[in-house]
Amino acid sequence: MKAARFHGPGDIRIDEVPDPTVGPGKVEIVVDWCGICGTDLHEFLEGPIFIPAAGAPHPITGETLPVVMGHEFAGVVSAVGSGVSGVSEGDRVTVEPYYVCGKCVACQAGRYNICRSLGFVGLAGQEGGFAERCVVNTQWVHQLGDLPTDIGALVEPLAVGYHAVRLSGLGEGGTAAVFGAGPIGLVTAACLRAAGAGKVIVVEPAAARKVKAEGGGADIVLDPTQADVPDAIRDLTGGAGVDVAFECAGIDAVLASAIGSVRPGGTVVNVAIWGHVPRVAMNDLVLSEITVIGSLAYCGDHPDTIALLADGKVDAEPFITGRIGLDDIVTGGFRELIDNKEENVKILVSPKDVIG
Amino acid sequence: MKAARFHGPGDIRIDEVPDPTVGPGKVEIVVDWCGICGTDLHEFLEGPIFIPAAGAPHPITGETLPVVMGHEFAGVVSAVGSGVSGVSEGDRVTVEPYYVCGKCVACQAGRYNICRSLGFVGLAGQEGGFAERCVVNTQWVHQLGDLPTDIGALVEPLAVGYHAVRLSGLGEGGTAAVFGAGPIGLVTAACLRAAGAGKVIVVEPAAARKVKAEGGGADIVLDPTQADVPDAIRDLTGGAGVDVAFECAGIDAVLASAIGSVRPGGTVVNVAIWGHVPRVAMNDLVLSEITVIGSLAYCGDHPDTIALLADGKVDAEPFITGRIGLDDIVTGGFRELIDNKEENVKILVSPKDVIG
Repeated sequence: MKAARFHGPGDIRIDEVPDPTVGPGKVEIVVDWCGICGTDLHEFLEGPIFIPAAGAPHPITGETLPVVMGHEFAGVVSAVGSGVSGVSEGDRVTVEPYYVCGKCVACQAGRYNICRSLGFVGLAGQEGGFAERCVVNTQWVHQLGDLPTDIGALVEPLAVGYHAVRLSGLGEGGTAAVFGAGPIGLVTAACLRAAGAGKVIVVEPAAARKVKAEGGGADIVLDPTQADVPDAIRDLTGGAGVDVAFECAGIDAVLASAIGSVRPGGTVVNVAIWGHVPRVAMNDLVLSEITVIGSLAYCGDHPDTIALLADGKVDAEPFITGRIGLDDIVTGGFRELIDNKEENVKILVSPKDVIG
Repeated sequence: MKAARFHGPGDIRIDEVPDPTVGPGKVEIVVDWCGICGTDLHEFLEGPIFIPAAGAPHPITGETLPVVMGHEFAGVVSAVGSGVSGVSEGDRVTVEPYYVCGKCVACQAGRYNICRSLGFVGLAGQEGGFAERCVVNTQWVHQLGDLPTDIGALVEPLAVGYHAVRLSGLGEGGTAAVFGAGPIGLVTAACLRAAGAGKVIVVEPAAARKVKAEGGGADIVLDPTQADVPDAIRDLTGGAGVDVAFECAGIDAVLASAIGSVRPGGTVVNVAIWGHVPRVAMNDLVLSEITVIGSLAYCGDHPDTIALLADGKVDAEPFITGRIGLDDIVTGGFRELIDNKEENVKILVSPKDVIG
């Protein structure tokens, strides 16, 4: 079958790879759609980061590059291995794309997203969503019900936002600010809206993204080049500051602004992955007893996220800004996202011949 | 009466100041003992920091330097104003040394320790414990019962440790590491022991402080110059890392070590006040979903802290490493603490003529 594999920085190729086999406890999915993630872009530009480099095999998969990419995918079940129940041929499904050890302290506590050996399907081995078919362990398969598979491919990024909102402890009617309206900021805002936030403020300087935020869950969009954000947020919240803020940018000044924008005793959830070790105003944490929580991906959040979409609480359709075929993944996908970063949210890739 | 007042950096004088008056709702205390705090030392060396500088009066007291210092004190009630109930002449008491606005979002939420206008008695105005008498609002007076007033003077620093342990969410039998065995690290370790921690690890390089930690609640003392601390702590906790860690040093590398020493999903409580904006390994927070909480002073923690001492769950006596009279406060107090930092924990000052 055909699959897009990462060979090195700037080097993603459509390779002919062996068809996967469906062993016991496994499910084979014919991929309909797979989104390109910011993590994929980082790998393309600067990788291997999460991808196991030559000579350093992933501890669970035992694989090194070249690996099949793509972890935001949905499709139709084409085969199930022995011992699989609850999943049948023809089911529309999406995948929680993990490899976990099951033995470390995090796994034992049920927090497998912070497994000490965590790997992602689509980064850590020969299975991924930028391929005609993908085989995964049945435990990671989630039923989409009546949802179409293009929306199903958005469950994974939405689950990132849902998880971050869950960790924040936001109560019904609480106030929230999202810093950065890239794909993760946008899904976080949408999940805040769905979670019953009383006010959702999005902070974003880029014009195209501001428009998207306005249409996607934000009550107010603040431009940090035009306003003192902490002051403006206090003005918008009766002088208090928001209950929770989400750092979705990975920029020192943005983190400082997020910390400065929550109420005394409030919470900042760090969703961004950092490319450097930032300076953090620890005294601001102390003097207002602020909590900062790191949030990574998702853990048991897929069913609730699928329900948000099924119930119409989140409209994910506007997040799809492009649809391409697998052969066009580099030019129409990765390059397009790099060159037109602010206009795009999510480009979906179809490995099927009919598309492109 | 006599009082030690801060006039500027390096300039603390024993001044003759007007006797305080006991207005409605106020309580006058004849000070028996008042401890010198690390905050006092910072003011002496580099102040004014929390002390209101000339031209910048404190928003609640309206005062500027020179101010009366001393906020860790206990003594005997000598007079009560009209409307005071529950406090009588002759009671042994200590004080939660706050000025708060009562109106801001933090005060309204009952978290007066993070009041937007917070001031400390002994830093923000003409009342303080390095004086023969001190008048405070009755709401801040706490009964010592049978405890002597020298131990009573230690309630305030102990309450800092008690509060930090409370914020950490440590459960009975949980594991903890305290980074830094200065006065606040030592009281935090003692409060962890009293809170039923299953294992208390103290990390400290200075020989004299290591000895004190061993005698004061630590099960194990690690020397960071001799061991890789996160590795050692994982070895001591079955590979997991501690449930909670306390940063009581205010040093970038120590905070990094604290973050590296908690289990996945664990909590780091920042107790230190920082003299600079540190670099923080935010990706470590994300990849292990660690929570960092700022802890400031205390808020409603004095009664429980007094009970810990009354019930013998904390032995505070060993923390007293010196007793001096008010006239000796600069040489025998501040200078001694600066010159022999590691040998001392708490020097108590008595404003009574008989001492010194």
